[in-house]
Amino acid sequence: MKTYFDCIPCFVRQTLDAARMSTDDPTVQERILRDVLRLASEMRLSDSPPAMAKQIHARLRELTGNTDPYATVKKRFNRLALEMLPELRDKIANDTDPLQAAVRLSIAGNIIDFGPKGNTTEQDARDTIAHALDAPLHGDMDAFRRATDEAEDILYLCDNAGEIVFDRLLVEQLGAARVTVAVRGAPVINDASMEDAQAAGLTALTKVISNGSDAPGTLLDDCSEAFHQHFHTADLIIAKGQGNFETLSEEPANVFFLFKVKCPVIAAHAHAPLGAQVLLQGHRGLSPKVTLV
Amino acid sequence: MKTYFDCIPCFVRQTLDAARMSTDDPTVQERILRDVLRLASEMRLSDSPPAMAKQIHARLRELTGNTDPYATVKKRFNRLALEMLPELRDKIANDTDPLQAAVRLSIAGNIIDFGPKGNTTEQDARDTIAHALDAPLHGDMDAFRRATDEAEDILYLCDNAGEIVFDRLLVEQLGAARVTVAVRGAPVINDASMEDAQAAGLTALTKVISNGSDAPGTLLDDCSEAFHQHFHTADLIIAKGQGNFETLSEEPANVFFLFKVKCPVIAAHAHAPLGAQVLLQGHRGLSPKVTLV
Repeated sequence: MKTYFDCIPCFVRQTLDAARMSTDDPTVQERILRDVLRLASEMRLSDSPPAMAKQIHARLRELTGNTDPYATVKKRFNRLALEMLPELRDKIANDTDPLQAAVRLSIAGNIIDFGPKGNTTEQDARDTIAHALDAPLHGDMDAFRRATDEAEDILYLCDNAGEIVFDRLLVEQLGAARVTVAVRGAPVINDASMEDAQAAGLTALTKVISNGSDAPGTLLDDCSEAFHQHFHTADLIIAKGQGNFETLSEEPANVFFLFKVKCPVIAAHAHAPLGAQVLLQGHRGLSPKVTLV
Repeated sequence: MKTYFDCIPCFVRQTLDAARMSTDDPTVQERILRDVLRLASEMRLSDSPPAMAKQIHARLRELTGNTDPYATVKKRFNRLALEMLPELRDKIANDTDPLQAAVRLSIAGNIIDFGPKGNTTEQDARDTIAHALDAPLHGDMDAFRRATDEAEDILYLCDNAGEIVFDRLLVEQLGAARVTVAVRGAPVINDASMEDAQAAGLTALTKVISNGSDAPGTLLDDCSEAFHQHFHTADLIIAKGQGNFETLSEEPANVFFLFKVKCPVIAAHAHAPLGAQVLLQGHRGLSPKVTLV
């Protein structure tokens, strides 16, 4: 997906959020803002939004010397999600459709995203999880079920810390043995990296790989050779979150995108309202199609 | 008031709104966005927000050749307000406190502002006016009453088109003979200029002057000599809207600021919540103080 004009004010706002998260020094915050404004004035709009976000956060780490400004937030939401895990696992087990329940909870967990909204709260996460099983699911659950029935080698692309604990529930439903989980190669925003996969208990459950990139999405050109190997040999890819959707929506791969709609640009692109739980089939590079189930 | 970091994402968003209002050509919209991002990367934060907005809108007019992109919107809201005028004039006449009722309606009219919110609707205006007399008024109405009782020469600084019709109701209450009304020197956003004063019937009622500037506020350095004359000899200044507050809040003048709080920066600066109706005394250059009445 290209970068839309509406993404640009949002980049600037995200920069300010991230600058404040990274340093208390207003002089440094100002320098970051000015740098990003200049970067944005020259950016290629044909690139996807995470390509710009990657640059912003790299500059931010460089100027502040803070390599992981969201470390505390990530730990906090991992802990919150782990507290909720036993109860949610029971809910899934007792549901008439455990796979759908796990899909919904994993999508709901995608609310824990400090990109679109810099002040996501624990209450936001609790409320979204509480409504996950009742709120509409925009997408073709039957198609997803068929795809997962057939798949022997699933690549599961995580998005955020905290959310990754809910991803574990879906990985459990899919059967961990056939699932490889991928996380970001380095900290960026509150995206999940290897230590979050460890905290979520995923490394003990199945194979977890790094994608080798510090973009908040899956910029294939920036990913490692090892990640490419998995990406091109998996027979099904499950991609969580807006960032993975923005970077992979035009890839000719057998991919399902699972995310919460958190901005108007994505709402328009996914034909689903703000706040919607979306399960979108990539159709091997054709334009995405959605139905309401 | 200086420009806060939080104003900067808002400038970029306002630029996009204004670019779309000015031209349908995405190439021109993109050029405007890039120009403003570069301008913003170099701006002086010690300047007030309307100083930057003045530059943005000048560049926008230059690039699009559209000298008054908000002309249609301004006419529409002038017409809407004029339709409501007779009924509101009756309401004021029948109120136990006609001056306060006129103050409240003139503040409520300040909702018609395409700066902070690019898609202000007629319904927004109708709803805000409908609640104006019941919603709290943040400020010292008694101090305002005393100031207007004493004043012989009042300078009334208008803000927006549409709103200016509600200003007429307050000018009528104050007694038009002692009031000079000032409007912007040229079109900028949906701010009121001389033709809006004419449409509102103010030119037939009292003396209306231009401030000689195209900033969406009162940047004294940018105003005409004639305006300065009025500004420095008036014994009371009534300044409408956030832009006039942002540019004059530190001036050592006998000024009351009347506005709706439409952004978090102003909410913090005016110690009043978003949406509040504010009547703030300038205290001749001292820091502003508010009480809830």
